[in-house]
Parts: sequence; structure tokens; C-alpha cells
Amino acid sequence: MKLPRLSRAAFERHLPILTWSRSYTRDTLTSDAVAAVIVTIMLIPQSLAYALLAGLPPEMGLYASILPLVAYAIFGTSRALAVGPVAVVSLMTAAAVGNLGLQSPAEYAAAAITLAFISGVMLTLMGVLRLGFLANFLSHPVIAGFITASGVLIATSQLKHIFGISAHGHALPEIISSLMASQHLTNPITLFIGLSTVAFLFWVRKGLKPLLLGLGLKPRLADILAKAGPVGAVAVTTLAVWVFDLENKGVAIVGEVPMGLPPLTAPSLNPELWGQLFMSAVLISIIGFVESVSVAQTLAAKKRQRITPDQELVGLGTSNIAAAMTGGYPVTGGFARSVVNFDAGAETPAAGAFTAIGILLAALLLTPLLYFLPKATLAATIIVAVLSLVDFSILKRAWGYSVVDFAAVAATIVLTLGVGVEMGVSAGVVLSVGLFLYKTSRPHVAEVGLVPGTQHFRNILRHEVLTDPFIVSLRIDESLYFANARYLEDYVYNRIACDEPIRHVILMCSAVNEIDMSALESLEAINTRLQDLGISLHLSEVKGPVMDRLKRSHFLDELSGQVFLSQYDAMRSLSNSPHIDRAN
Amino acid sequence: MKLPRLSRAAFERHLPILTWSRSYTRDTLTSDAVAAVIVTIMLIPQSLAYALLAGLPPEMGLYASILPLVAYAIFGTSRALAVGPVAVVSLMTAAAVGNLGLQSPAEYAAAAITLAFISGVMLTLMGVLRLGFLANFLSHPVIAGFITASGVLIATSQLKHIFGISAHGHALPEIISSLMASQHLTNPITLFIGLSTVAFLFWVRKGLKPLLLGLGLKPRLADILAKAGPVGAVAVTTLAVWVFDLENKGVAIVGEVPMGLPPLTAPSLNPELWGQLFMSAVLISIIGFVESVSVAQTLAAKKRQRITPDQELVGLGTSNIAAAMTGGYPVTGGFARSVVNFDAGAETPAAGAFTAIGILLAALLLTPLLYFLPKATLAATIIVAVLSLVDFSILKRAWGYSVVDFAAVAATIVLTLGVGVEMGVSAGVVLSVGLFLYKTSRPHVAEVGLVPGTQHFRNILRHEVLTDPFIVSLRIDESLYFANARYLEDYVYNRIACDEPIRHVILMCSAVNEIDMSALESLEAINTRLQDLGISLHLSEVKGPVMDRLKRSHFLDELSGQVFLSQYDAMRSLSNSPHIDRAN
Repeated sequence: MKLPRLSRAAFERHLPILTWSRSYTRDTLTSDAVAAVIVTIMLIPQSLAYALLAGLPPEMGLYASILPLVAYAIFGTSRALAVGPVAVVSLMTAAAVGNLGLQSPAEYAAAAITLAFISGVMLTLMGVLRLGFLANFLSHPVIAGFITASGVLIATSQLKHIFGISAHGHALPEIISSLMASQHLTNPITLFIGLSTVAFLFWVRKGLKPLLLGLGLKPRLADILAKAGPVGAVAVTTLAVWVFDLENKGVAIVGEVPMGLPPLTAPSLNPELWGQLFMSAVLISIIGFVESVSVAQTLAAKKRQRITPDQELVGLGTSNIAAAMTGGYPVTGGFARSVVNFDAGAETPAAGAFTAIGILLAALLLTPLLYFLPKATLAATIIVAVLSLVDFSILKRAWGYSVVDFAAVAATIVLTLGVGVEMGVSAGVVLSVGLFLYKTSRPHVAEVGLVPGTQHFRNILRHEVLTDPFIVSLRIDESLYFANARYLEDYVYNRIACDEPIRHVILMCSAVNEIDMSALESLEAINTRLQDLGISLHLSEVKGPVMDRLKRSHFLDELSGQVFLSQYDAMRSLSNSPHIDRAN
Repeated sequence: MKLPRLSRAAFERHLPILTWSRSYTRDTLTSDAVAAVIVTIMLIPQSLAYALLAGLPPEMGLYASILPLVAYAIFGTSRALAVGPVAVVSLMTAAAVGNLGLQSPAEYAAAAITLAFISGVMLTLMGVLRLGFLANFLSHPVIAGFITASGVLIATSQLKHIFGISAHGHALPEIISSLMASQHLTNPITLFIGLSTVAFLFWVRKGLKPLLLGLGLKPRLADILAKAGPVGAVAVTTLAVWVFDLENKGVAIVGEVPMGLPPLTAPSLNPELWGQLFMSAVLISIIGFVESVSVAQTLAAKKRQRITPDQELVGLGTSNIAAAMTGGYPVTGGFARSVVNFDAGAETPAAGAFTAIGILLAALLLTPLLYFLPKATLAATIIVAVLSLVDFSILKRAWGYSVVDFAAVAATIVLTLGVGVEMGVSAGVVLSVGLFLYKTSRPHVAEVGLVPGTQHFRNILRHEVLTDPFIVSLRIDESLYFANARYLEDYVYNRIACDEPIRHVILMCSAVNEIDMSALESLEAINTRLQDLGISLHLSEVKGPVMDRLKRSHFLDELSGQVFLSQYDAMRSLSNSPHIDRAN
């Protein structure tokens, strides 16, 4: 079928698969398939573990790793992003659904499915409406702090499985106090399984690959074996439980996992539930998008490729809708698996679709083998995975750079740990936006003078410059808008309330990117007040867009002075001082 | 008592009465007393009418006009502000308390008293913590739109008293539909009283003073008589009701107003009520403060005086606490009465205290006379007073100046009229802040070149300038922070993705007032990416505070190019083009 030219471009923009599939070769297929095998091996234990972290039955982790990956392969633009259950979003799902106070596991699962659906619709809509820029309001330090704090929360929440005791809660004080107060005694066998798995996985991560290479294995094979570490741990501990009948010695196991295709499911349409989940869905969508888009951008840049953030929203949105329709829960692009996918050579989103086939096979064939899998093994997998996210150095870097950035990070970390994920990330965003607004509401104003031998003007307090006693030149270092309009008035009135024989005030507007209506009214008030005192008001270096705006008002007609192209022109025509004239 | 020097200064800052009372003379006393008489005559009918508007018994209007005025005279800094019940805050009180669904008038009054107390504590705390700048986030156009829409709402809400029918609601659709659906028939006598009072008051406002001057009266006396118009209407209509027994012909009257001193009252301490009133108290405090401080500033400027916004907060806060303790309801500085006070010659806040004495005498002596006062007369007083607030021209001015300002005003007006005062003003603030953030998240970036014969650089699209094919100079017209960091990256990458032989990119930072940590990371990313492509990144005209910040990071060590004091220096040392070298 031949589509008309314009609509074909639109089609290709909204269905990126049409672009990359056209140049798909056998070589690409091989690369994608190899990457898919490695990611599948990693994803089987992770999907089970993250479902457990989200408070859901393990098969939901598998279901969230099948159709959502296919949806992303059709609609997504990143060639290396590995979509599926991830640690932080699973933790946020647990917090969101846990807050509802549901009793039955079925209701809990239905709420998680609904959460995926709301989040999917939201992300898709944001993509269609091109609202991807909203994610920019989450600053880098806030994200870094949030991920670090979430890592700590996740690791702590898994300790109960390692010790074989019970605990609950979505914030550090609650989790720790419920661990301390647990009625159950630590189960020594569970503890042994948990600790030895943690130790084994850390060793796999650092020491296995060099060892295998030393034994003469080919690098690619060594790589696959190293990535299979968690699968090995799963196999060995499951076998141990079965052989030694550890279930009857108090080791908690995964139990029956249904075998077969993912079920067809539908979200609840209960408006009350939607209302309760709405804010959580907003936060999960934005955090999921930001995590996903930053890893996708990093990986794309390495190959000089580009991703389209608004289309990424559609890709992730449809993935989540797919998760809601097939018994899954909220998904996004995971950091660690995407890097593995990229390193393993994935060249197109088809690698994701092949991974989906791998997980589907696991769901169809392997689930009976998971019956005796100890929960402690899964907890160990999670702990080792998330500890790599924890990096408190962001606090130190922010402290060294700016107190505002530090305040935002510190609040995010403290509130995420102390109150919970939703409060932490919301506070981070509100605080960074609030502090930005506060700063712009009290702009830096510098009195400037001429740098001798140039036409350049700088702060009289920082540079040796020439000035004229009859002229005050003020450089306003901020756009003028409602929040700082009155501040400027006060500043100018205070500056001229001295005994100097001032005749001209020049506002140097090189840093004024906007003058809104409130600021215009303040400028009019300043102009009138100065005129009463026999002082002329001038503007210099007004930018094009700002000048266009001013021309639409009466301000320029009423202005007692002039508008100069440059501050140098202004000084040369207003000053009688021989210094200024001689300067150039 | 001789206070140590420092603490005396602090004392005087927090008790402005200590400053002005020291130079108080008999002349000042006379001026203040005359102004107080005129304001008292105006305030008696207004205080009754505004209490009615707030849904409260009329005596609460009188009580709100006694002790609060004394409190402001002690703690306030404006010499002309007339504090007491005002139209907009009364409307907001009606909306806030009306939303609680209270049945008994006693509960309703208790809620209004509590609202005054919460608002008073809030204002006082804001003053002590110097948070007056928060009011700046209410832009001039949003305030203008809000006041206009409130005027329309208030006038419409009073129509029921003019027609002698019943109606309710806090937004236009509700009020109008309940007026239409009223079961009562219009009472013709009430309608006659209402309409003739409105006509009379409009005539008083425009025609009485010229007439009196024409009859040979002295200007001051003519002025007092013209201000006494509403009192005259009150007297005549009350007399008419009494003489013709109109009460039994269906004219609604004020009825019994208790005689005597204001009662001592205390706010409710019910935490649920505080929770319900909290957001309303925030909005009433901020609107009241903004209305008050803008009239106080305008009047002070006329006499070259200053007011202290943070101390004004304390003045208004203690007034509201005083209102809560003596049976009043939320008060603030009124626009019209303050102008009258100023024109009548008030020289110190003592004029307010004298007004309080006048109202106290009225409460002690005149209340029996108010029994037969028709509600239609009070409604007419309100309508004539608020219609002077209505000015839709702000919409036209905003439309002509900027679409962003227009959007904020239009949303404020539409939502205030359609949904209510609280929604209207909140939407105005959120929208103006949101649009400001949106603008800063997509900054204007101009490619600049040298204006021939100068050292000045301007936009290549707007000016005839000199450029060098190997150099791209970008002037970034915004502070760089988390919301636009990624936008800058995209902009630079797109600009260099052309076929030109670019060797240098210069970011001209004259308009960059801040580089936060997210933006720093983006600059590092840009630097690395350009370096990979063999392009050097340079900065020029970096401001002092921004440079200080950059020096604390590793960025300057890693920068592939240099930091130049001026854009001209940068071009002169990087360019080989003879044009640039010959330019100066």
C-alpha cells in the first residue's frame, strides 16, 4: 500500500517500527537475538523478585515482561531500552497500592493493574499532547537523591526475607521498627541461604568474569555466564530446598506459580479507586519516564543516535496499557538491563520483542520449577541489584556547588527515607521550583561602569571601571515579572535616595528576557517618580522580543529618557565626563 | 524609661506608634479628628452592609470596626490606611464559611470569628518571618481581574435584597439561577426603596458636591455632606419604614441590633474546623494584604513616605486577632475608605483610633435606631460601592500587551465568576506561575554577530552584523536551570548538526543569571560532545556570581575552550576573519 507522502511521515513518526524494520538484516537479527538471550536470563529472576517487592504474586512480574515489551518495540524510539518491571517503580507501586488498605490479594492485584492502566493512559496522552517537557521540572540532583534513597528503602525492605521474619511499611522508621518488633525468630537456614546468595552474587559481579576469562573462555561466553549468576543462585537454592525438604524447616518459598499464557485482564473502572490512585499514577509516570529517558538518551548518544522524548512517552504509555491488559503491573525502561542489552549488542527494539518470547517460554514451561524457590534468594537478587543505585556522593557534590541544589537533594533523600517515596519526590519537585521562584523574585542588580579601553560594562564592585557622578547605570540580572516588579521599584528608590547629584538612571537590560505587565506597571511608576525628582530614566541593550512587547504599550511614549542600542552608546551620549569620552 | 539603643530601634520597628506619636501636635490632632469624623460617617452604613454581605448579623460589622482599628493604629505603618470590613474580604468570608454547611447562625458567626483568628495569626507570623514577598506572586493583572470579578459577584448577590426575594450561591450561575427560581414574588415597595436608593447614591457621588459648592458651601463642608449621602439614605428609608409601617407590607428590615460594647469572644479550637478553614484563611490573608498594601503604598508615595510591608503584615494580623477577640470577622485596609481618609487630611494612624471611638459611640447609642433600616438600603450601598471596583478594561490592556498576562486575567475572571472567589484567585496564581515556568523552560536563544563599528553583538536575524563561518555565537536569553538544561543541549546539538565547518561554539552568557547543578551537567555533556566532534566550547560575559559558582566545580578545568570577559574579546581572539579584526 502506498500512503500519501505527508501521512506516511506522520505514520512513521508515531510508529518508529516502520523506520527501523525497513533496514532489518540477518546480521541485525543475530545481534538482537544474542542480546535478548542475555537479557532474558537476567530478567527471569528479576521479574519474579520485583513482583515480590511490589507485594504481588511472582507470575505478575513475568506477565509484565511479555506484552509490554512487544508494545515498546512497536512504539518506542530507543534502540537499547529494556522495558519491564524495575525496582523503583515496583517500590512506588507497593507504596501506592499499600496505602489503600486492601485486604485480599485479588483486590491488591486488581489495584496494581488499574494503576498500570491509569499510568499508561497518562503517559500516552502526555506524548500525544507533547508534554514531555514537564519531566524537566524534576532536576538532576532531585532524581539522583530520590534513586539513592529508594535503593536504601528497597534493600531494607528485603531484609525481612533474608532473616525469615515479618515486617511491613513504606518508609525507613516503619520498616526498621517493624523488623525489630517482629514476633518471629530469625530462621537460621533462611538467613544462611540469604547471606550466601548475597555474597555469591557480589562475587559473580566482581570476580566471575575475570576468572572465566583466565580459564580461557571467550569474552562473550564469559559475559553470558556472569550475567547468569542470579539464575544459577535460583537453581542451586531451589534444588537445596527440594532435596533437604527445607520448606518444612521454616524456609519461605515462592510456592505455586500458575503455568500458561498471561491472562486477559481489565482495569477497574471504579471512580473512587481512580481518585485514590491518580496522584500515585502521576508520580510513577513521571519517575518512570525520567528514569527511562535518561538511560535511553545516554545509550543513544554513544552511537550518535537520537531518541524522541514525546514518542518515548507513547512507547512507555502503550507498554503500561499492555501490562494492564495482560495481568501485569507498572513497567518502565530499567537502567541496569538496558545497559546490559546495549553492551550485549542489541541494535533495534526487536531485541525487546525477542526477550518477550523468552519470558513467554519461561511462563509456559518453567513455572513448575519455581515452586521450591526460596524468597530469600529473590531478596538477595534485589539487594545486590539496588545497592548499585545507592550513591550518596550527590549530597557532597551538591553541597560544594550550591546551597539551593543541596537543599532540594537533602529534602528529597530525608523525606523519601523518612516518610515515603511519594512524599520524597513531590517535596523535591516543589522545593526546587519554589527555590527557583524565590531566587528570581529577588534578582541580582549590579551597578556597572565602563571597563577602561573597551566598550564593555561590568560590576563596579568587582572590576576597576569608569563611572560618572551624574549617572547611575544598573544592570538587572533577571527577567522582570510580577514576582520581582516591586523589588525593582524598591531597589531603584533606595539607590537614588542618597545625596548624589543624580540626573540619569540607565537600566541596562542585557539580562532582561521578559517584561510582563506587572513589571511594565512598575517601570511606569519608576519613570513617573524619577521624573518628579528631575531624573531621566533610560534603557539600554533591550532585546528584540522585549522591545517588540514594549512597543505595544504606551511606555516608550511616556519614558522621560531614551532607549539605547548599547550601554556604551548611552554613556557616550549622556556623560560629560572626559574619562568616558576618552575611553575609546 | 531609657531603653538600650539597639533594643529601642527594634522596639520602634515593631511598634511604629512610638515613632509618630513623639511628634504628635495639636494640628495633627485636628487633621486626624476631622478625617475620623468623615470616615466614621462612611463606615457606619458600610460596616452593617458588609456584615450582611458576609452572611453575618449587622452588629458584627460594627464590632469589626472598633478594636481592629486600634490594633492597626499601634502596629501599622501606613498613615492613611482605613482598616475594617471591606467588600471583597466579606465576600470571601461568605464563601469560606458558607462552604461548611453550618445550620445555626451562632455556629456561622463562630466560624467567621475563627477565620479572622487564623488569618490574623497567619499574617502576624508572615510579618515576623518577613514573608511579605510571597504576596508578589499575585501579579497585578490577576489582582485587577479578581477585584473586577468580585465586584460583579457582590453586586449580583445583592440583587435579592433589592427585589425582596430569596437567592443564594457563591458564583454567578448559582446566584442567577436561584434568583430566577425564587419562590417569592418581587416586593414592589422593597424594589422602590432599593432602586431609588441606588439612584440617589449615584447622584450623590456625581452631582451633590458640585451642587453644594454652587450653593456657596465651603469645600470641606460640601465634602462631608457628600460623604454623608449613604447615612442620609439610611435615615430617610428607616424613617419611611417606621412611619408607613412597611415592615408589615413585606419590606425586610435589619431588626434588633444589640446595644453596647463589643462582646469578648474566642476562636474555636476545633482542629477539624481549622483544617476546613485553613486554605480560605491563606487566600483571605493574601488578598487582604495585597489590597491593603497596594493602596497604602500609593497613598504613601503621594507624600514621599514609605511603608514597611513586613510590618504591615503585623498590623493587619493583630487587627484580625483583635477582630476575633471582640466579635468581629476578617478585616483589612479598604481601598475607598483609605482614599477618603487621605483626602480628608488624616496624618497619622491615630485617625483610625478616633474612627474606632466614633463607631464605638454608634454601637453604644445608635443601634436602636437601626431596627427599621431596610436591607434594600444596605444592598444599594454595597452595589454603588462595588461597581466602582469593576473595570473590565484590564482584559483589553492585557490582550494588547501579552497573551500570557491575558490568559492569567481571563482565567481569573472566568473562574471567579463561574466557580467562586477561592477557585478564581488560586487559578490566577497557579496559572501565572505555571506560564512563567513554561516560558523559562523554553528559553529564547539568539545567534549573534558584531554590529559594525562597535564592540556590540546582536541577533543576526534582527540586525546587520558581522559573523565568522567557523564560529557560532549563541546568546542564551535565560538563566540555565533544571527546567531548560535539556532544551539547551538539544538546541546546541541541532545547531551544529549542519554542514558548516564549525570550529568554535561561544555561549554568550550576558543574560544567564544562574547556572544550577542540572545545567552544569548539561554544559559538561555539551562540552564532551563538541570535543568529540573537534569543536571547542567557549563562554563569554559570564557574570560574577555565576563565575564564582563555576569555579567551585570541575567544569572550567574540563572546558575545551576559554572563558572571555566579553564577546568582543572572544571573537577577536578566535576569529581569523579580516572583517572582525577591522571592525574596531
